[in-house]
This record gives sequence, structure tokens and C-alpha cells, in this order.
Amino acid sequence: MRAVLLMGSDDASYYRVELCRIIPNLDLRIYPKIGGIDDIEFLLVKKPLISDFGVFPNIKAIISLTVGLDQFDNVEVPSNIPILRMLDEGHVLSMAEFVLFSVMYYHRQMDRYESFQQERIWRECPLRHSRNRSVGFMGFGAMAKKPAIMLRDLGFRVSSWRKSAKTEPGIQSFRGMEELVDFLSGLDILVCLLPQTEETFGILNLSTLSMLPVGAAVINAGRGSCLNEDALIHLLDNNHLSGASLDVFQREPLEKHSVLWAHPRIRITPHIAGKADVPKAADFIRQRIQELEEEV
Amino acid sequence: MRAVLLMGSDDASYYRVELCRIIPNLDLRIYPKIGGIDDIEFLLVKKPLISDFGVFPNIKAIISLTVGLDQFDNVEVPSNIPILRMLDEGHVLSMAEFVLFSVMYYHRQMDRYESFQQERIWRECPLRHSRNRSVGFMGFGAMAKKPAIMLRDLGFRVSSWRKSAKTEPGIQSFRGMEELVDFLSGLDILVCLLPQTEETFGILNLSTLSMLPVGAAVINAGRGSCLNEDALIHLLDNNHLSGASLDVFQREPLEKHSVLWAHPRIRITPHIAGKADVPKAADFIRQRIQELEEEV
Repeated sequence: MRAVLLMGSDDASYYRVELCRIIPNLDLRIYPKIGGIDDIEFLLVKKPLISDFGVFPNIKAIISLTVGLDQFDNVEVPSNIPILRMLDEGHVLSMAEFVLFSVMYYHRQMDRYESFQQERIWRECPLRHSRNRSVGFMGFGAMAKKPAIMLRDLGFRVSSWRKSAKTEPGIQSFRGMEELVDFLSGLDILVCLLPQTEETFGILNLSTLSMLPVGAAVINAGRGSCLNEDALIHLLDNNHLSGASLDVFQREPLEKHSVLWAHPRIRITPHIAGKADVPKAADFIRQRIQELEEEV
Repeated sequence: MRAVLLMGSDDASYYRVELCRIIPNLDLRIYPKIGGIDDIEFLLVKKPLISDFGVFPNIKAIISLTVGLDQFDNVEVPSNIPILRMLDEGHVLSMAEFVLFSVMYYHRQMDRYESFQQERIWRECPLRHSRNRSVGFMGFGAMAKKPAIMLRDLGFRVSSWRKSAKTEPGIQSFRGMEELVDFLSGLDILVCLLPQTEETFGILNLSTLSMLPVGAAVINAGRGSCLNEDALIHLLDNNHLSGASLDVFQREPLEKHSVLWAHPRIRITPHIAGKADVPKAADFIRQRIQELEEEV
């Protein structure tokens, strides 16, 4: 291996420390200080800061520091250069934490208990036990599986929807647009973990969100482009939906003047649901580089 | 079996439906309509509404509708009458949900994100991943085990403290007063699920809560008598502790004038963490009655 170039990460110095610790004699460069361009064999990219990766004559692969690859949508990447998705354990676990928290928030009606506390009211809301509560995952890749299985083990009725069905014991699976209404119409809580693609753009819109039963809650920790925010607000305001937790948005960072910030039934977090654990991610990168070197 | 008397439950009519559905020819009576006192062989008790259970000449057992038995502390129960604790699956699962929610709330700094939302601030808090986060359970019975194992499986460093140590793979166990300081001093998040006994009265006081590291959070879903509320407030106000989620209180219902309601770092729920699932609880009762009848 000659040189590795790191691009577009706020954690560049942390990655440098961890990568240099586990890869002996690593020649790590941080964009824009690229040094000799011919030396560069691997690119570690969070945000692409250039529009054409064809400028690197000798790269073997791009390793994305994110799970989604949509940041490459408008970037030229030579067709013979593979782009590998990051999938470190920290990312999977932190997404599971966020999903479990958000599901429990609606399942246990924490929004109501927060209001009761403000008004100093000691009042119990009737509890629907988990076996009577249905949680559905749109997108059922590596990020969804962990929280889905944990919810199943807590007694919830869990289902999944994706392009091509993927079975998991005890989790009902739906697939394709033709099964979307059957999937959505049975849910109390919808968890969207879809990636950004042409097919998922605006997939949660007035028509599809209306398929959810009255009182359902929506959690979006996939991509902001999947959800039509105006449709969501409309269905919250007319009491079709009871609440929403949004971690991703049509435009990020969410603009100061967005009506989402102050909506009483919307919880906002700034795209923090799933986060890489840099030391674990560095180890993932080390393994991928090693495999790619051995292939040669 | 002759008659079963149900006492002190707000869910009496729900229990009646479920019990009569699964126990043929059940003679179920609801206190105070006890009918012939000699007929009564089993008592199902949530709150004891009498002070001496010796008045029932023919009872074989009392089945508590709660997991804790502290409501019998000041009640006379003939020494030959067993009191059985309720332990239905719904109770275990709902407690696990509450604990997971509360741990995630502090672990993922949701209090800070809620403030950011109010101020329309898009800002990420650095994430300490679960493998660097320590959660400890005081009391490690049937209610604690499920959430402890799930947190362990999410990568958390989990430990337990109880009177006599109980081992569980991957969970460090501490026991007795002599190990309390070692246990508490290593925690980021303390979960108290202790029962009410003479030994646990005020066990979380100024001295022991001060053993927690600066910045720790406290969750109490055991019994209110375990926690000295004044000590908690003192340690929150001087920034030793970062937050507390309280589901149980020294006096319940929590009085209107309590300062706990309005404390900015305290979350309050009205003793709703673990709740019986009546159909499951009815089945538990059916099984216990059947076993006790067979013993005769």
C-alpha cells in the first residue's frame, strides 16, 4: 500500500490517530493536502469534496465512511473503482439505541407523561402491552435488523418492508409497492431506515402516510428525502398521526425558520441516530484495505 | 376450589372477565362483597384493604397482584398462609421497556437535544459509544435481568449489585454494603429496582449517591422508599448528578406541591414502569391455584 487519502470527515484527526495506531507505516493524507497524486491507492470519503474521482490515476477503491452512499449520487466515479460501505459495529448499535428509544417514547406515551408532569398531574395512561403493539421497519438492512430483533424479543409484533423480501424468524415480511398498503395499514409505529435512491424519494407522502392507522407514529432515521415533510405536518395537524421523531430532513442542517422545530408533535435530532465508532471503523477500514491488497 | 376473593385492584372487572374465561365455574368475589367468608380459599390482593387476614378461616394462599410484597408490611397474615408474588411476562417486559427508554434518554443525551430543538439549534453532542458507558442495576431479580441482558447485548458495560451476588455472563456482579462503593463509583447510569425492605430504606442517600461519578444519572423504578429525594435534589442542584428519572416516590401519589414536579433535571412518571398484563396475569393465577389445589 502506498498512500491513503481521507476526505470530508469532521473526525479526520481522530481517524488519523486510530488508523496510524493499527496500520504500521501508514502514509495517511488528509484532503486537501494530497501530496503526490500518483501515490494514492485508497480513498476514505465521508463527504466527496471533488466532483470527479477519475483524477486519481491509481486508486483501487473508495471506502465510504457512511452507511448510505447517496453522497456519491452526483459525483463521477470510474466504473472500475468499487465503493465500499462502512458498516462498523458502533454504527449498528447506536442506530439500534435510537430506534429503541424512539419506539418506546411512543409506545409508552412519554409525550403524555411529559405534559402531565408540567401540569403536576399524577395520572396513568392505559398501557397497551407490547404483544398488542405493531412496529414496522421500512428498509430492512443491517441497521434495522438489530432493533427489529430486540423489539420482537420484547414481545412486539414486528414487520418489515423492502424491495425484495428478506425473512427473519418471527418478523412478518412485506415487499414491493403492491404490498405497501398491507404493511402500513397494520402499524402502530413506523420506523423508516430506507436509503436515498430514486425509488425511495418521497415514498412517505400524503398517499402512503394516510395508509397508516389513525394514531400511528412515524420515526425517520433513514434519509430525509424519503419523507414529504409537508404531508407529515398535514397528517399530524388533522390528528391522523400522533407524533413523529425525525433525525433526517429534506435539507440538512434544518433551517432556522423551518416549522418542524416548533411543532408540538415532532421531535428533532440533528442526524445523530447512527454514528460510527471511530476505533471500530478504523479496524473495519484496515480489514478492507488488507483484503483489497491481497486480491492484487 | 370454592371461592376466590379479589381485593384492592383497579382492574377488578378486567381480572373477573379473564379469570372466568379460563377457570371453569369460578366463584369469584370482589371485595367488599365477600359473601360467605368460610367459602373463600384464595385471595388475590393488590392493596390489602383489611389489617388482618386471619379473619378468613379457610384460605390456602394469598396471591399478590404485584411483584413487590411491601404492601403487606403492616398487615397481619397467619404464618401458615403463603403469599405468592405475581410475576407475569407483561410485568417483566414493560419494566424492561421503561428501563431501556430511560437509559437511552441519558446515554443519548436526549435532554440536551430537547433543549436544542426549543432553541432551533442544529448541534451534535459527541457520542460516547455503548462500550464506553457503564450501567449498573441495584437489585438484580427477575425484573432487572431482561433489560440488563439487552443492554449488555447493545455493548454496554453492565453491572449488578444485590445482597447476595448472582452471576450472569458478561455482567459484573457486586454484593453487600462493603462492595457498594466499588459498584457505584464506576457507573454512568444507575438503575434502582430494589424492593422495599428495612435494609433498602433510604439506601440511596447523600452518602451513597455521592459515590456516583460526577455527571451520573439515576433511574428509580424500584420503590420510592429506597431513595432520599432531598439528597437527590441536592446532588442535582450542585451538578454532581446530571439527571434523574423517577417512577416511584416516598409518597404516592406525588403531592401537587412537591418540588420534584418542576425540577428541570427530573423526569416523573406515575408508577407505571412495570405493569401486569391482565390476561397473562390471570393465566399465572390459574396455574398457581391449580398447583396449590393439587398439593392438598
